[in-house]
Amino acid sequence: MNREVMAKRARAIRRQLTKKRISCLIVTRPANVTYATGFLGDDSWAVVTHNQVYLLTDSRYTEQAQAECPSCRIIERAGPMAEAVAELAPKLKSVRTITVEKSTSVADFEQLKRAVKARLRTSANIIETTRLVKDESEIVAVKSAASIATKALGQTLSYIKPGVSESELSGMLDFQIRKLGARNSFETIVAFGANASRPHHQPGAKKLKKEDTILIDFGAKYRGYCSDITRCFTVGTPTPFFKKVFDVVEQAQAAAIKKIRAGARLAEIDSAARETIAKTDLPVYGHGTGHGFGLEIHESPFLKAGGKGKLEAGQVITIEPGVYIPGKLGVRIEDDILVTETGRRILTRGCPHSPLLANA
Amino acid sequence: MNREVMAKRARAIRRQLTKKRISCLIVTRPANVTYATGFLGDDSWAVVTHNQVYLLTDSRYTEQAQAECPSCRIIERAGPMAEAVAELAPKLKSVRTITVEKSTSVADFEQLKRAVKARLRTSANIIETTRLVKDESEIVAVKSAASIATKALGQTLSYIKPGVSESELSGMLDFQIRKLGARNSFETIVAFGANASRPHHQPGAKKLKKEDTILIDFGAKYRGYCSDITRCFTVGTPTPFFKKVFDVVEQAQAAAIKKIRAGARLAEIDSAARETIAKTDLPVYGHGTGHGFGLEIHESPFLKAGGKGKLEAGQVITIEPGVYIPGKLGVRIEDDILVTETGRRILTRGCPHSPLLANA
Repeated sequence: MNREVMAKRARAIRRQLTKKRISCLIVTRPANVTYATGFLGDDSWAVVTHNQVYLLTDSRYTEQAQAECPSCRIIERAGPMAEAVAELAPKLKSVRTITVEKSTSVADFEQLKRAVKARLRTSANIIETTRLVKDESEIVAVKSAASIATKALGQTLSYIKPGVSESELSGMLDFQIRKLGARNSFETIVAFGANASRPHHQPGAKKLKKEDTILIDFGAKYRGYCSDITRCFTVGTPTPFFKKVFDVVEQAQAAAIKKIRAGARLAEIDSAARETIAKTDLPVYGHGTGHGFGLEIHESPFLKAGGKGKLEAGQVITIEPGVYIPGKLGVRIEDDILVTETGRRILTRGCPHSPLLANA
Repeated sequence: MNREVMAKRARAIRRQLTKKRISCLIVTRPANVTYATGFLGDDSWAVVTHNQVYLLTDSRYTEQAQAECPSCRIIERAGPMAEAVAELAPKLKSVRTITVEKSTSVADFEQLKRAVKARLRTSANIIETTRLVKDESEIVAVKSAASIATKALGQTLSYIKPGVSESELSGMLDFQIRKLGARNSFETIVAFGANASRPHHQPGAKKLKKEDTILIDFGAKYRGYCSDITRCFTVGTPTPFFKKVFDVVEQAQAAAIKKIRAGARLAEIDSAARETIAKTDLPVYGHGTGHGFGLEIHESPFLKAGGKGKLEAGQVITIEPGVYIPGKLGVRIEDDILVTETGRRILTRGCPHSPLLANA
């Protein structure tokens, strides 16, 4: 990651540290480690002080860390993480108290307590707060992830034919994502017919029948950044009921998207979608209307009923209302949206959207 | 999961609870939740007492939990997990102290402390210890995972041709795994040429050249259980040096496998592989010789230099020595092995193994 971007991030993190009177933060949550250092590997921690960002990794990743983290001091540890921190701690001038991220496990925290001589405390949401608004390099990465997902679904459509199983179709979509040089941002959901009424359905052996509807919820992860899209299709002519549900969900999504702009209240966006459905005889969904994403697939802000707070320019969020009728059908439509000063930019506009496919 | 199997597991867990004087264990680690309850979904905790196993889940998973966990009391929570535990706690007779798994985050532990009136403490490796030796239903699942991985690689071989990228080849292998109704047990590693010298290489845009060697490290996850295989191939005629390295690694693996039986010392198996390589002019690998696996891809026992302990019948382990020459090549061969009273059973014997492919 470019030195200028990383320097700007480090300044933003340090502003949070100053605000919370933290002189040294041990960063253990993988997405936060990536954010603070640029490192895309695993099993590594970061230590952020007012003078330096350290990456604590091991020999498997030293080469990768040197390439990805030109702004960091890279420390190759051979033993446990807690010992590497203990060796580093005395060298950190003017650090009396070390703060550890609250997402750290009790086991790791206790090991640190035993190994490190300094006073330890915990704190939550330091780096998460700086991650709320994306910087330019992050927006570029999210746009790439969205465009790869869009392209991958386009290349999978011809594969949606009666007889294909949910598991096979999810595998073909994932293959297209890999072919485009990316990974999954989460395990792809493919649900046929009534299976789509379960928002977290796991793709199984069920084979597509001509009259089934199809729900696909998936995302690509590129250079560490996610995208998140849901689309619904039919191979046969859609039933009037499916068509009605699809139209209502589309209208609910459009109503919410229209409200997006810097300063918009999260609850107002959520209710725009919910109220569109509430006006019909269809059931209102139980999940949130959308969520932020970036290095992780679910990040703040969360758009839900009664949610507090406002949108800021530079946030990227999903809008994903749905209608679920157990035993019958499920329809959800989800797009990725960049919040701007004056409105919004839909990053997944090009993703195939028409419910009827021509492969019957 | 079948009631009899679950009852046996619950007895084994309770023997550990008695040993450590624990009357109630909050299980938060996902693999441990699956082990104690049979549940294969996410975002759920288990509570194990001497009378009952509770699964704390939410409405997204209630239907799945009812199907997968006939022996559990299923509690559908609407609010935070800590509150669900707080509501349950007073109903647990004779429970004065609640023990929480040490892998729990500090944030979750603090929330529990605030919400629950009982005394809280933490403990490590209670359920991990019972997971060390696999029961019959687990061995059946591991065998299925091994045979799916074996089949998937067989179906991917014809795809290994000059011009294919690492990322694309990994995607095709993952697709075959999905087509067989399984998932990945970890992100597939495909490394061409010198990339194979990095044991944790991430598949990239590099395209296969005729003279490149190929390393593939992958596994299938079926009904929650993993397999883990590494194979090396060439499309062109292997160079004499590659052939030499391949033969040495194969011999090292065979030497370690030969030592496997109930009662064998972990260190003795590790050194059998390491010494075979040390006798040559090739460098000895820095990683372990193998590891247990099951619900997770890396479990105890860990076979490494100086490792303490012995194998037990019913454990499943990998044996995976390698030779890595940075900038030049990497060869690792990994199989999955069931430890028996009198010896071993190789579960991945049928997986394609010859270095030369016929697709040049």
